[in-house]
Amino acid sequence: MTTNERIGALRNLMISNDIDAYLIPSDDFHQSEYVGDYFKCREFISGFTGSSGTVIITQSSAHLWTDGRYFIQAENELQNSEFILHKCGLSDVITIDDFLLAEVPANGTLAFDGRVVSSFDGNHYLELLSCKNVHIEFDCDLINEIWKNRPALSKAPIFLLKEDYTGESFASKLTRLRDSMQKRGAVSHLLCSLDDIAWLFNLRGNDVAYTPVFLSYAFITLEQAHLFIDQEKLTDETLLFLTEQQVILHHYDEIYAFVKALVFEDVLMLDLSKTNFKLSQQISSTLTCIDTINPTTIFKAQKNKIEIECIKEAHRKDAIAHTKFLYWLKSNYKKVVITELIAAQKLEELRKEQENFLQPSFSPISAFGAHAAIVHYSSSPETDVPLEDGSFYLTDTGGHYLGGSTDITRTVALGNITPEMKKHYTNVLKGNLALSRAKFLYGCSGENLDILARQFLWNSNLNYLHGTGHGIGNLLSVHEGPCNIKWKYNKEPVTLEQGMILSNEPGLYLENHYGIRLENTLLVCEDSKNEYGQFMCFETLTFVPFDLDAIDFSMLTEEELSQLKQYHQKIYDLVSPNLSEEEKNWLETFL
Amino acid sequence: MTTNERIGALRNLMISNDIDAYLIPSDDFHQSEYVGDYFKCREFISGFTGSSGTVIITQSSAHLWTDGRYFIQAENELQNSEFILHKCGLSDVITIDDFLLAEVPANGTLAFDGRVVSSFDGNHYLELLSCKNVHIEFDCDLINEIWKNRPALSKAPIFLLKEDYTGESFASKLTRLRDSMQKRGAVSHLLCSLDDIAWLFNLRGNDVAYTPVFLSYAFITLEQAHLFIDQEKLTDETLLFLTEQQVILHHYDEIYAFVKALVFEDVLMLDLSKTNFKLSQQISSTLTCIDTINPTTIFKAQKNKIEIECIKEAHRKDAIAHTKFLYWLKSNYKKVVITELIAAQKLEELRKEQENFLQPSFSPISAFGAHAAIVHYSSSPETDVPLEDGSFYLTDTGGHYLGGSTDITRTVALGNITPEMKKHYTNVLKGNLALSRAKFLYGCSGENLDILARQFLWNSNLNYLHGTGHGIGNLLSVHEGPCNIKWKYNKEPVTLEQGMILSNEPGLYLENHYGIRLENTLLVCEDSKNEYGQFMCFETLTFVPFDLDAIDFSMLTEEELSQLKQYHQKIYDLVSPNLSEEEKNWLETFL
Repeated sequence: MTTNERIGALRNLMISNDIDAYLIPSDDFHQSEYVGDYFKCREFISGFTGSSGTVIITQSSAHLWTDGRYFIQAENELQNSEFILHKCGLSDVITIDDFLLAEVPANGTLAFDGRVVSSFDGNHYLELLSCKNVHIEFDCDLINEIWKNRPALSKAPIFLLKEDYTGESFASKLTRLRDSMQKRGAVSHLLCSLDDIAWLFNLRGNDVAYTPVFLSYAFITLEQAHLFIDQEKLTDETLLFLTEQQVILHHYDEIYAFVKALVFEDVLMLDLSKTNFKLSQQISSTLTCIDTINPTTIFKAQKNKIEIECIKEAHRKDAIAHTKFLYWLKSNYKKVVITELIAAQKLEELRKEQENFLQPSFSPISAFGAHAAIVHYSSSPETDVPLEDGSFYLTDTGGHYLGGSTDITRTVALGNITPEMKKHYTNVLKGNLALSRAKFLYGCSGENLDILARQFLWNSNLNYLHGTGHGIGNLLSVHEGPCNIKWKYNKEPVTLEQGMILSNEPGLYLENHYGIRLENTLLVCEDSKNEYGQFMCFETLTFVPFDLDAIDFSMLTEEELSQLKQYHQKIYDLVSPNLSEEEKNWLETFL
Repeated sequence: MTTNERIGALRNLMISNDIDAYLIPSDDFHQSEYVGDYFKCREFISGFTGSSGTVIITQSSAHLWTDGRYFIQAENELQNSEFILHKCGLSDVITIDDFLLAEVPANGTLAFDGRVVSSFDGNHYLELLSCKNVHIEFDCDLINEIWKNRPALSKAPIFLLKEDYTGESFASKLTRLRDSMQKRGAVSHLLCSLDDIAWLFNLRGNDVAYTPVFLSYAFITLEQAHLFIDQEKLTDETLLFLTEQQVILHHYDEIYAFVKALVFEDVLMLDLSKTNFKLSQQISSTLTCIDTINPTTIFKAQKNKIEIECIKEAHRKDAIAHTKFLYWLKSNYKKVVITELIAAQKLEELRKEQENFLQPSFSPISAFGAHAAIVHYSSSPETDVPLEDGSFYLTDTGGHYLGGSTDITRTVALGNITPEMKKHYTNVLKGNLALSRAKFLYGCSGENLDILARQFLWNSNLNYLHGTGHGIGNLLSVHEGPCNIKWKYNKEPVTLEQGMILSNEPGLYLENHYGIRLENTLLVCEDSKNEYGQFMCFETLTFVPFDLDAIDFSMLTEEELSQLKQYHQKIYDLVSPNLSEEEKNWLETFL
């Protein structure tokens, strides 16, 4: 079927269901960052394969909204269809809201699969269109009816993460969660976010790319723990575990009827921002709801001692792989053709050589020259270029190891670069170094610290249009809330607590020229305590050299020079036992 | 009358008025930082002369709560009375709330003068004691009945601040205020804060120490402007001005009846946090109230071009006086006895020599040695000590000049100081320098920047227990909201806007040893603008040398050394034309 034929089939179904507009977002049932193949309805109907976009189909036209990362790709992929592309962020582009207000007729019907729309968005559409008395039909999945050979929901087996890695039993986590429920006066708790569930049960799966979680819901009361899951995914070991822990199992899609049946005078705690619209609509108005951040989101952000040990070991392995990669790259790109894709493949291969490596922790970025100025660049055979002298090569990648996850960006100078490029690289590096040696009183949040990473760029009238740091999950999502390091604050600032793990990734992007980003992972630690309070500091977990060829050493203070020297000495001590003589000799030049 | 006789007289009145507990705070009718003599009821009843404290009298006992600044003073001043002192902040000290809950009998009466209690506190007492059905009587001033020879309310004349100084006419300010009212849907606006009223009308008075405001209320509608004021204070010039501007005059205390009479379907905008409890209780429930920060509070924080020019001129004069003072101090303290009070007097005399000097802008701090470790130290004949070798002398003072107000702290090394003292001084100085050279994107608030001033102390496990900076009013309160520079945020962060003026005052206080604080005044300025947005920076307005004898130069980076050198060069250029040859030669040694 061509794209237009698919649109035609959908329109026929819309007519027979009295639907004026059908909306298809990119999410799964859990608002995950990456989604499984089963959920790629937006890609099915439009042919657009980017990770982010929203489709709306009416009887007269078909529309896709996507952002700047995907303008060129979307134009290509929509070429032979009637789709109209709306480039979000450009001026004079109609918003989805304005489109719906203009195109859905009064007393008409807007439909979507309420399971793939967030509670927030669903309620927003309800409110937006109430002035036109538009009916919102959210209990339908029309794509399912026309998508022959739709991939099945993942059946990937679930595995148990032992306490050697988690550092805390399911029972202990459950006790903490129930304490938190009781403190808030809740007797039950609906948990929809996949990373919270995986963390709580000490289980991992493989249903979602780059995030080893499994499709499920959990419902916790003060006495019971219910898990809604496709039980075919359970191995003998995990089934035994859940049985021993007296977890009550339900089928994955029974959650809707289960929640609908909660009609007693219950006090239900849930995080509505993590709940899909259809599920939120099942909640009876007789229930008292406490809409709050999931306590597990806060718990899991603070890694315990055993987790930290395992995470450090994962970073050691990652340091070996990445250091080998940098040596290979620097010594070979002039001898053989190395393209962005070849380099990315090499780095993944080197990670795979490490024991307990599971998979990349996110979609890798491997970008040369002007490509590196695109913050979310993703190399493809169409865009791939060879690495050459005179510019920067940037690689932002990470690995999930059994026990820990990594996220690292290095930028490498190839051949001679201009003094201006060195100056920019050095200012980014100075920011990275300043943040990692920060010391601060307990109570500080990322908003207080961000300027340390940004100050050298700001002093040069430069900036980077992303946060300085995000929380990093442990064998979960590599972008994990609630902590972060950024200067603009929308919501409540989050205090940096001992055991939190964050990225430290200042950068600089000169469009059509080059990009620089230097990213290490930081662990929040307690420093000394005295009459002023508890001092906190960061421990850097990433041990991969910074390219000395890219540094203008005249810009570094004594303190920075000594910090850099110590950092490279630590790398050498940690990594060199696993390097070849050649690699070791090369690494010695950093000391 | 002794203190106990005064308590007795009050108790007799309490019996005849059926009052179980009588509460006396330290405020005036406008929650001013300093209060006029008329308002010193708490001092009258207790004998305690400190600026802050709350008294509660019952039939069986008399109590005073005050904070750490005043423990010793309060103990002395309460000595021959039945007053029990409660030291706020120490453990095991009963709070006012707990005291009221325990001591006011069920169905009893707590009374206070609702005009000197904030709306917030009054409502808090109402709510706190509602469980005991306690009646709150707020329309009484029992102290007035027993205070023979109570000082009259100030009759100090009001003067007009010309547009040469204000840079904006009353009419223009009124138009801006009314625009702001209309944007919020308000048709009337009650203004109770004295600095807002003085700013709006371009008038100044002398009713409150250190703050040239006048007791008044204003009521603004879209067509009218009402001013409630003791008209005896109006000079011919100010009366003519108000008449020309068609301001409707009322007697000062008519505001209560006026507000009570607002019974139509009005939309009244006011800042409840700046409204006294009695006045807030006059507002009819038929009115719609918009409780918001006074627009004038935001307007006046952003100084206009003419104001900035005048403020710079005031700082130039202040720099001359203060530089002369430092020379005098450094070259004389070994020759003649200079005590804290003598030094303070000398500095004030030197300021008075400057044209257009009006008065000190706040209660001056002149502190030697261990006294300087007391952040709010106030020297008195009892505590006064001579300045001697081997420690720091700290002076935190400021002046109101016609056109501008200053606030400056300098710390001076006397004789030889220890390397540790130099290290601490240098770290405080490095913080001051770092904040003043900060560059940041528009949208930053003080919370984003505070760490720049604090970082060097935090790196040494040290801290100062006050904010880094406060807003500074222009011939108004030297502590002015809403902007500030601090790392802890309670409320909404305030974006730093062009024209705001703030202090930059990191410090360090080692109890019983010494204190260091270095305070300059900063002006928020626009720097360059590009694709990243509007960059902002600070311009330092204070031009008084830092004591080079106190600096460990080995701790300064090249950047800091050059910044310091440039700063002292600017001081020399600005101040030296007004110095004697001796003073000039001394100042040359800073270059």
